[in-house]
Amino acid sequence: MSTVLEQATSRRYPVAIVGAGSIGTAFAVVHALAGRDVRLYDVAAEALDNARSRLDQILADLAHFGLLEEAPAEVAARVQTSSDLAEALAGVAVIHECAPENLEIKQAVTIEIDRLAPPHAAIASASSAIPGSEYARAVAGRSRCLVAHPGNPPYLLRVVEIVPAPFTDASVVRLVESFLEAAGLACVIVRRELRGFVFNRLQGALLREAYCLVRDGVASVEEIDAIVRGGLGLRWSVVGPFETVDLNTRGGIERHASILGPAYAAMGAERGQFDPWTDELIGSVTAQRRAQLPLERWEERVRWRDRELMRLLAARRSFSDSEC
Amino acid sequence: MSTVLEQATSRRYPVAIVGAGSIGTAFAVVHALAGRDVRLYDVAAEALDNARSRLDQILADLAHFGLLEEAPAEVAARVQTSSDLAEALAGVAVIHECAPENLEIKQAVTIEIDRLAPPHAAIASASSAIPGSEYARAVAGRSRCLVAHPGNPPYLLRVVEIVPAPFTDASVVRLVESFLEAAGLACVIVRRELRGFVFNRLQGALLREAYCLVRDGVASVEEIDAIVRGGLGLRWSVVGPFETVDLNTRGGIERHASILGPAYAAMGAERGQFDPWTDELIGSVTAQRRAQLPLERWEERVRWRDRELMRLLAARRSFSDSEC
Repeated sequence: MSTVLEQATSRRYPVAIVGAGSIGTAFAVVHALAGRDVRLYDVAAEALDNARSRLDQILADLAHFGLLEEAPAEVAARVQTSSDLAEALAGVAVIHECAPENLEIKQAVTIEIDRLAPPHAAIASASSAIPGSEYARAVAGRSRCLVAHPGNPPYLLRVVEIVPAPFTDASVVRLVESFLEAAGLACVIVRRELRGFVFNRLQGALLREAYCLVRDGVASVEEIDAIVRGGLGLRWSVVGPFETVDLNTRGGIERHASILGPAYAAMGAERGQFDPWTDELIGSVTAQRRAQLPLERWEERVRWRDRELMRLLAARRSFSDSEC
Repeated sequence: MSTVLEQATSRRYPVAIVGAGSIGTAFAVVHALAGRDVRLYDVAAEALDNARSRLDQILADLAHFGLLEEAPAEVAARVQTSSDLAEALAGVAVIHECAPENLEIKQAVTIEIDRLAPPHAAIASASSAIPGSEYARAVAGRSRCLVAHPGNPPYLLRVVEIVPAPFTDASVVRLVESFLEAAGLACVIVRRELRGFVFNRLQGALLREAYCLVRDGVASVEEIDAIVRGGLGLRWSVVGPFETVDLNTRGGIERHASILGPAYAAMGAERGQFDPWTDELIGSVTAQRRAQLPLERWEERVRWRDRELMRLLAARRSFSDSEC
């Protein structure tokens, strides 16, 4: 197994990307930036042409903002497009399956990849919501299948959730994790498979509420976007949702749950949700937060949050001043 | 009415803030930064002392990051603390009520403010979730009561939602809006009163899902925070939730709803939610997005989003390099 792990992290081995839409192209950027050769496959020649121009544009923009260590052309040269799947898959250790978000298509594409790929290569799907248990159930080599779902675009949102199915081999999880971390992506390994995983579970919950607010005439699409951009999103980019409320209430998240929990439960009940924050659940969340931040350092951390936000605002201001 | 509007925007008139906890102190910073005199009231002398040191610390930090136009002491000098409510309220046009998030306390405090405040002054509550219809129902001057709920902290998250109750006078809404915009805060006027308003409806939806994921052993508190910080939150700080999915799918939000809508509905159903994205609702959301962004400019806007994220990452990098 160590040879495969070596292949996964060594830059000598290319990666194959199946599907040259926006996510496939974005993964090509990620790996080419990290110095790895990329085989970008699509059945449609037009998709490959579009991917090539998009890739060049992204690299030019990254260079413009000083985010590229090499010349754009050097990075682009690592990406080889192909409309021959067997050729694209030859000798790779990891394959990103970036087919459209459709169960039948993902099933068919995964079976085909499994048939042609080297025996020890991992098959990582960029599925947004469909779990491996659904699209890979009938695949002969299903033990090497899992989901590696990135934020879009992954060359800028550098966090990926890895979601093994119950039938995924543990060594495949480690392989894909090492491989993606070598490309500079932080990995979260989701511990229990479910539809939508973590990323789109959270996004979906907020989005469903946002649709309700528009439906009920509470706020417009643009007003909701404005509140998230300047408020929730800005803060969540510095501290995640649990740390946010942990820092919003003196006494931490346990006290937040006791003051605002009933209101949040009532809002949920109005949407049909009944998932009570039991004492046990609050206890578990509190214990995890306190392991990250003892209460005696709470004020210091609130100040840290403020200073991180200030750093961000000052940086934005200075950057827009210089009109870069 | 125009005199009151003048009072609201002219810097000659002080603002009163009732309650010197973290939100009250933060509002004091907002208005003092904007050149307005502030009367910060609390019943507890200790709260006022703490507010004063916290205020000094915030101003020192803002100065450190180059976000202050004046000397910290000049700004701080505009804030006068008081434990005499009548004195604090004399001659003000707008009052921020920043009492604890508790119905009985908010009711009692609002009645007291209403009794002592100048007749035309607006009473804006920083309530996080309790609507005016609940806490101000029994207040004699309820027509001058509304909610002005900020992001925390409002000197950094510069968006406020204004939530009138059905009994709030329209001129009071305009007054508070002008007043807050004069202080550099962007205002969203919520069109229909509801518990949690927009900000905490959205936050609550995501938070409830996050608690479910921890409860079910899908991910840890820190893993969820990491996915939001580096993924959803970072992107939402540039484009809100509707624009995010509008840009995530070629063809825009209408196509997003057709591809991922069923999966989001299924995730919602697992939490008891049944709020279908009807054709009519999708049509309304789509029309609002298309008014902001015609589809023929979609690719250009995707590139703009990427460049904004790059600008942000480059700015963060250069700022952390200079160790400011």
